[in-house]
Amino acid sequence: MGLCTSRPPASPQTDGSAQRSTEQRLFDLPDVVQSLAAARRDWRAAQQRSNEPGGRELPSREALAGVLHDVRGVLFPMRLGPPDLRQESEDFYVGHTLGAALHALHAQVRLELGYGARLQTGASSDLDAQAVRIVREFSTALAGIRRLLDSDVLAAFDGDPAARSVDEVLLCYPGIQAMIHHRIAHQLYRSGAPLLARIVAELAHAQTGIDIHPGASIGAGFFIDHGTGVVIGETTVIGQRVRIYQAVTLGAKHFPVDREGNPIKGQPRHPVLEDDVVIYAGATVLGRITVGRSASIGGNVWLTHDVAPGTSITQATLRQETQPS
Amino acid sequence: MGLCTSRPPASPQTDGSAQRSTEQRLFDLPDVVQSLAAARRDWRAAQQRSNEPGGRELPSREALAGVLHDVRGVLFPMRLGPPDLRQESEDFYVGHTLGAALHALHAQVRLELGYGARLQTGASSDLDAQAVRIVREFSTALAGIRRLLDSDVLAAFDGDPAARSVDEVLLCYPGIQAMIHHRIAHQLYRSGAPLLARIVAELAHAQTGIDIHPGASIGAGFFIDHGTGVVIGETTVIGQRVRIYQAVTLGAKHFPVDREGNPIKGQPRHPVLEDDVVIYAGATVLGRITVGRSASIGGNVWLTHDVAPGTSITQATLRQETQPS
Amino acid sequence: MGLCTSRPPASPQTDGSAQRSTEQRLFDLPDVVQSLAAARRDWRAAQQRSNEPGGRELPSREALAGVLHDVRGVLFPMRLGPPDLRQESEDFYVGHTLGAALHALHAQVRLELGYGARLQTGASSDLDAQAVRIVREFSTALAGIRRLLDSDVLAAFDGDPAARSVDEVLLCYPGIQAMIHHRIAHQLYRSGAPLLARIVAELAHAQTGIDIHPGASIGAGFFIDHGTGVVIGETTVIGQRVRIYQAVTLGAKHFPVDREGNPIKGQPRHPVLEDDVVIYAGATVLGRITVGRSASIGGNVWLTHDVAPGTSITQATLRQETQPS
Amino acid sequence: MGLCTSRPPASPQTDGSAQRSTEQRLFDLPDVVQSLAAARRDWRAAQQRSNEPGGRELPSREALAGVLHDVRGVLFPMRLGPPDLRQESEDFYVGHTLGAALHALHAQVRLELGYGARLQTGASSDLDAQAVRIVREFSTALAGIRRLLDSDVLAAFDGDPAARSVDEVLLCYPGIQAMIHHRIAHQLYRSGAPLLARIVAELAHAQTGIDIHPGASIGAGFFIDHGTGVVIGETTVIGQRVRIYQAVTLGAKHFPVDREGNPIKGQPRHPVLEDDVVIYAGATVLGRITVGRSASIGGNVWLTHDVAPGTSITQATLRQETQPS
Amino acid sequence: MGLCTSRPPASPQTDGSAQRSTEQRLFDLPDVVQSLAAARRDWRAAQQRSNEPGGRELPSREALAGVLHDVRGVLFPMRLGPPDLRQESEDFYVGHTLGAALHALHAQVRLELGYGARLQTGASSDLDAQAVRIVREFSTALAGIRRLLDSDVLAAFDGDPAARSVDEVLLCYPGIQAMIHHRIAHQLYRSGAPLLARIVAELAHAQTGIDIHPGASIGAGFFIDHGTGVVIGETTVIGQRVRIYQAVTLGAKHFPVDREGNPIKGQPRHPVLEDDVVIYAGATVLGRITVGRSASIGGNVWLTHDVAPGTSITQATLRQETQPS
Amino acid sequence: MGLCTSRPPASPQTDGSAQRSTEQRLFDLPDVVQSLAAARRDWRAAQQRSNEPGGRELPSREALAGVLHDVRGVLFPMRLGPPDLRQESEDFYVGHTLGAALHALHAQVRLELGYGARLQTGASSDLDAQAVRIVREFSTALAGIRRLLDSDVLAAFDGDPAARSVDEVLLCYPGIQAMIHHRIAHQLYRSGAPLLARIVAELAHAQTGIDIHPGASIGAGFFIDHGTGVVIGETTVIGQRVRIYQAVTLGAKHFPVDREGNPIKGQPRHPVLEDDVVIYAGATVLGRITVGRSASIGGNVWLTHDVAPGTSITQATLRQETQPS
Repeated sequence: MGLCTSRPPASPQTDGSAQRSTEQRLFDLPDVVQSLAAARRDWRAAQQRSNEPGGRELPSREALAGVLHDVRGVLFPMRLGPPDLRQESEDFYVGHTLGAALHALHAQVRLELGYGARLQTGASSDLDAQAVRIVREFSTALAGIRRLLDSDVLAAFDGDPAARSVDEVLLCYPGIQAMIHHRIAHQLYRSGAPLLARIVAELAHAQTGIDIHPGASIGAGFFIDHGTGVVIGETTVIGQRVRIYQAVTLGAKHFPVDREGNPIKGQPRHPVLEDDVVIYAGATVLGRITVGRSASIGGNVWLTHDVAPGTSITQATLRQETQPS
Repeated sequence: MGLCTSRPPASPQTDGSAQRSTEQRLFDLPDVVQSLAAARRDWRAAQQRSNEPGGRELPSREALAGVLHDVRGVLFPMRLGPPDLRQESEDFYVGHTLGAALHALHAQVRLELGYGARLQTGASSDLDAQAVRIVREFSTALAGIRRLLDSDVLAAFDGDPAARSVDEVLLCYPGIQAMIHHRIAHQLYRSGAPLLARIVAELAHAQTGIDIHPGASIGAGFFIDHGTGVVIGETTVIGQRVRIYQAVTLGAKHFPVDREGNPIKGQPRHPVLEDDVVIYAGATVLGRITVGRSASIGGNVWLTHDVAPGTSITQATLRQETQPS
Repeated sequence: MGLCTSRPPASPQTDGSAQRSTEQRLFDLPDVVQSLAAARRDWRAAQQRSNEPGGRELPSREALAGVLHDVRGVLFPMRLGPPDLRQESEDFYVGHTLGAALHALHAQVRLELGYGARLQTGASSDLDAQAVRIVREFSTALAGIRRLLDSDVLAAFDGDPAARSVDEVLLCYPGIQAMIHHRIAHQLYRSGAPLLARIVAELAHAQTGIDIHPGASIGAGFFIDHGTGVVIGETTVIGQRVRIYQAVTLGAKHFPVDREGNPIKGQPRHPVLEDDVVIYAGATVLGRITVGRSASIGGNVWLTHDVAPGTSITQATLRQETQPS
Repeated sequence: MGLCTSRPPASPQTDGSAQRSTEQRLFDLPDVVQSLAAARRDWRAAQQRSNEPGGRELPSREALAGVLHDVRGVLFPMRLGPPDLRQESEDFYVGHTLGAALHALHAQVRLELGYGARLQTGASSDLDAQAVRIVREFSTALAGIRRLLDSDVLAAFDGDPAARSVDEVLLCYPGIQAMIHHRIAHQLYRSGAPLLARIVAELAHAQTGIDIHPGASIGAGFFIDHGTGVVIGETTVIGQRVRIYQAVTLGAKHFPVDREGNPIKGQPRHPVLEDDVVIYAGATVLGRITVGRSASIGGNVWLTHDVAPGTSITQATLRQETQPS
Repeated sequence: MGLCTSRPPASPQTDGSAQRSTEQRLFDLPDVVQSLAAARRDWRAAQQRSNEPGGRELPSREALAGVLHDVRGVLFPMRLGPPDLRQESEDFYVGHTLGAALHALHAQVRLELGYGARLQTGASSDLDAQAVRIVREFSTALAGIRRLLDSDVLAAFDGDPAARSVDEVLLCYPGIQAMIHHRIAHQLYRSGAPLLARIVAELAHAQTGIDIHPGASIGAGFFIDHGTGVVIGETTVIGQRVRIYQAVTLGAKHFPVDREGNPIKGQPRHPVLEDDVVIYAGATVLGRITVGRSASIGGNVWLTHDVAPGTSITQATLRQETQPS
Repeated sequence: MGLCTSRPPASPQTDGSAQRSTEQRLFDLPDVVQSLAAARRDWRAAQQRSNEPGGRELPSREALAGVLHDVRGVLFPMRLGPPDLRQESEDFYVGHTLGAALHALHAQVRLELGYGARLQTGASSDLDAQAVRIVREFSTALAGIRRLLDSDVLAAFDGDPAARSVDEVLLCYPGIQAMIHHRIAHQLYRSGAPLLARIVAELAHAQTGIDIHPGASIGAGFFIDHGTGVVIGETTVIGQRVRIYQAVTLGAKHFPVDREGNPIKGQPRHPVLEDDVVIYAGATVLGRITVGRSASIGGNVWLTHDVAPGTSITQATLRQETQPS
């Protein structure tokens, strides 16, 4: 910068003077600001992000939380909508709220698409049309999502003797909250908004302790009891009327890698659970194995191989299997 | 500053570079910030305020508005308090709300006293004790203020045939809102917190268009109808059961000045209205004159001399008086 | 206090002790609470209100402000509704918002009716049905109110050369804000909710300085320019396309009284303005007089007698009339 | 509409049935919604607005109020900024808040320009560039606005013997609040955002009862005392150190009209006040007259002709003039 | 629907026309609204809920969260109450806040009772009295709950060497937050408001990852360390001074079923832990077994049979037991 | 209660009378308030806290959450700061927000120090200076914290094949949220504010289910996948590039106790993980053992002894080790 005899503009310490008491400068704000700016510069240099856009062009967790709040009300107006809603204005509420939610979602989808395009320095020609398509698909899918969630609510009601009514299930059960988020996230994931889908999934994870990757494919009538600590991986496939308990992991054993040792994405690597499977608390099911129809996996079981339909696996059976004869 | 070879710290333009697009710099923020800082420096220099305190040490209009909101509820819990208040917990509400309001008021009084002390570079030895005294006096005065306001409410009810109940008067009438503020402001003014008193008065002025200086002394049963445009000056003295209408001014004719031509403060310069006076809309009453008991002043009258008790003054009477005989 | 050896229950000073420092008891909260309770007791005794209900059963200014906010959006969705509203969901918005607003209004109407019944110790048999009827009438009247307000907007646009568009008028002009409130308040007044009507009118008064009694009957195409200080009395009747300016009073000269000297309510006592009348700033028009079609009243004029159609009244004409010949 | 055999979609009454209880349909929501839609259709047809945009594209009063709130803090950070601001971070606060405020203002300017372009069905080619220019000019003007406001504060302090400090003036006086708004509004008006300017002016009007058209040109050191009811017209020109009191009108006598009788806009039609003029409460000054340097106009005076410098006009002098000799 | 000759009222697409641009109809809102209405109709038909009430008559999670927030402050005013609370107004705060909380709770209890009555189409004659009884019992139980919670706080302080003070425990420890909720929920559960109890329990579950069924009976001095993943079932009975760690499950092995295979409710099916038991992280204790006084269960242990007092069970001991001899 | 003929002051039941209906006294508020006051008195007596301060002088969880919210934005302005932030005002935002956050933090630190001093009845001479020192150290450490967090973000991106970008990791991954909190908490812990540090840690625990004691020392590039149920103890030492999965416990086996059996604080009692260690889901690692460089610990493994560098431990290996030969 060479010789600089002038006062640095707009920097707070410049209009101060020597006798300023230390009380006024409790903390060296400008120094700290400078050191933080240096850290950002280094990061951006390392990430080769010198050509950042002018503004923050990333989706917002808060904005998506607002969309979710509205869509929950749209799906279940008389139970999760505003307390003073009356049935006579149900459709008005649904239409108005949905209109606002879809436009807000559209803005977030557009942000994700733009972000994705910048990452790939790819063509961003028709991002607007793409965003409209994604939100249209989302809106069209909503009634189907509602019907699936109705099946989940009934499954919880039927599966838990402590449940007194379907409404109690919808209002209280964390597993249902997780599934409302998942079915929405899964739709976004399939339509091409995986970052939004992930944020929706993490909103549920934070509230319920249930961590379902938006890519997981889950059939009707799915019930998660208690739920804390459940992890369901991206390529998991779950049939109809499946039931799992807290701390169950449906995970990958290892990632398939290519010749350079880089993980290959999108390969099926999580379990397949066929219809009517039950998995008890704390069980760990790893790899692209198949648990056959109506099989049950006992608590704390560590499972890495296929299970035939109708079989019941427990710690004991496992130990027997692994015992030297 | 001598030779300065280093980058000015923490100033945004420093990590930019020549090729930064204009899009990123829509507005020359640093230049504007610098010009505003220069304007502040000039002001502070002109006002000889180089030794400002580290933080803003001025009372806050918002904080006082909060105190007023609480005190209104404390004075009339079942009518201006929270809608869900029930009579059985009235005293609990009053005690709790009052405790919070008094401590918040104490903080504001302390700020005013400190501010006043700095202005006078005077002794600030016992500001804390003084602030406690002022708030104590305020708290002790509250029941009396409530009784005076009850008389104002009754006066409005009796004076306005359109009034259906005393509760309607308390809920709706801007004149009553102005008097709640004034009776509180007047107490603060008398105890030695004139800046807070002024802020309270201006809160009422903004809401009602009624501008009563906190110094004005006003008896029981005062009624202002409609009210927009009313101005009541600092040394005004108003008796009991007085009634005035919109756009009435009780003002000063001129300020008494000392030998250097500077106005002398605190001299009585506004009207005295004795008991049961009525002043109709738009009348202007100026100077330290006395309007005698039960006199009435007509609409739009411009009055600058005493009026005998029981007299009725109108435009017509005035014109007669000023006609050449 | 007589013999009282026991601790009063649940009163804060009871678990204290003599050695408690004064710092902890800055203000004598229990004493102040007690004095305020005494003031309330005296008021209730004087008002013969010993049999108060358990809760506050009065309409709420805040609740009504919320209803007004919603109804404004319902009347003009694309201009006063939410900023993100799109035309495709206009009816959904209107229906949903109206549904909520009508139920909130119903609750307030019910409170007023109950309050009125308690005041009269009258029969309160069918208050619920009455409240439904009032809100039904209100909802049915809304489209007509919208059409009248459209005529007011056009009148302002035509009458003010500074107006650039009808939208600017609707967004900015205080006279229009006052008329939105008035036409709503007038409907409530006519249907039998005069206290709510009054609160609505005072909401406008506080915002605009324009004070229109909800009873005033005002024709289409009414335009108030600037507006601060305007007062329009309860029995005023205003024709079509009338225009008035700031600080105009349309008031009563005196109240008709019965034999005991009590004012008789409901008697016509405010002016009648026929179609196309103009009244300039500061004019005062008092009493049940008629200002004829297309007459104009000059600024600051004080008028207490009828004016023939087409006449133009100014200060000068008045002075001539009142001069001795 | 002829034969319509399909169910109207998404309309609430369609899934109802005859036996639905009246309780569920307190109000005929669909009918009211329909009647309101009809009223909007008629308005749009009459206004030839069939080709409305999809969304509301009008500036927002709330958004501008937010900008104003921020700009006030930017102009006077230690007095109108956040209560916990400390001088050491003053410039950081100013820069951050200003950045946000300018971008929010930019959005509003863009809305006004787009709206204006639609009204004129004119070319909207460079609206973005125009909006950036207007906000740039605004940002550059801010330091000058601050200096002018400093002169206004000093004028109020010098002119009002009741003022104890310049800070009290800035915190309390409605005349200063009005001038902060006006000097901002005037800048927007001059740069080509007259609708935003008008909204800013009306924000001040609502708070203070002072109605200054943003077009009015006002010199340094302007002081409005009390202020309620003041009206200052669009082409008013006010010199330096002028002082006016409540309810003063600086208005137009009549509009110059063209041959068809339509008002000609932009013609000077309001008064010129030279330096050091004083106008007392309630005076009305009309038309393009000049009030000469240091002249004073008394309370309630009605003035429609030029006044020579140094002259003092009162009701009495006027009456003498108009008396028959 | 047969012949339908009238325009469907209040449906957005009705005032549109063919030439409406697609831009205005980004999403087919009416179609989506209709499909969602159909999904709701199907659900209601399947649930035989055609005779739904007009409004939503279910308890509200948000409302209960507000009650909990207040009750926490009422129980520990100087530590969990408002930060500016002072000891001198402690009882006022407690009384006022409790009054509001009890009335809000009463409304929620009333909603649950009404909901329960509708479910059973049973007699709903005395729901109001029942609701008052439940809230009365709740209020009477509060002091006891506070004393139990004090014992829990002391247990955590004594049991965790990292704890520096009882206040830190109360402010920070998730186990304490869970127990505040549980002791409140358990009281509601016992008094007959099981749905509210469940919602309260789930509020704690979402915050802490600790899932305690409100039916569980837990003695004084209970301490949960870390807590994430803890599950405690409905009929669990826990003695005094018990300590458990994260991921402990106290669950049911299977449900007792009646002849038709339906689970029989209310049967004891969860463990009994006697006084001074300790259960380490990840242990799973299932079925109506008894863990004797002062026994300790090691980490990750899977336990389904009784444990004698004083015994210490670990993985190793278990393996030995289950090894073939 | 003995003879008590007088009214207890300011207690609600005193202005009632015998005939008051039960409706008005739904709940015995004064009795409940009294019983709660008694419970508090007993607690304070037991805790020997009769000399409590006048106000609540404890840090506030809400206030710290606000500080955290701001510091997150300060660390990552363009990704976690306000959505409308633009890069040109990044430093202004950072400086302004940091200034406010540091002063808020200072207030909380001061509260903790005062609280600590009261606990020890120790010398509290220089608490202010100490608080300033702690916050200064905190501010100086921020840039380093940012750089460490950048390494954590990269580690998550590299370690999870599902991660699409570093921004997605920062926005979504609970492990990153936990580490932002932990690195801040650890700095506060080291500087002498352990209670604040604990509150920060619990804020993360509540959101993510990840429970890291602020005392734990964690190297760069740390990655926690999924995370629910992770517990990391106070004296844990973690090297660089370590990766752990959900439900991993790094705990203590037992506390070292002194001769009286009291636990000795501050003794190393949790594991040491050297660089590049991986620990899979559900593993429990207990005691001051060392897991050597690049070792990996399999899922659900229970480990209480040292592991050599490069070793891979699984359930199977463990069972072999523990099998009788």
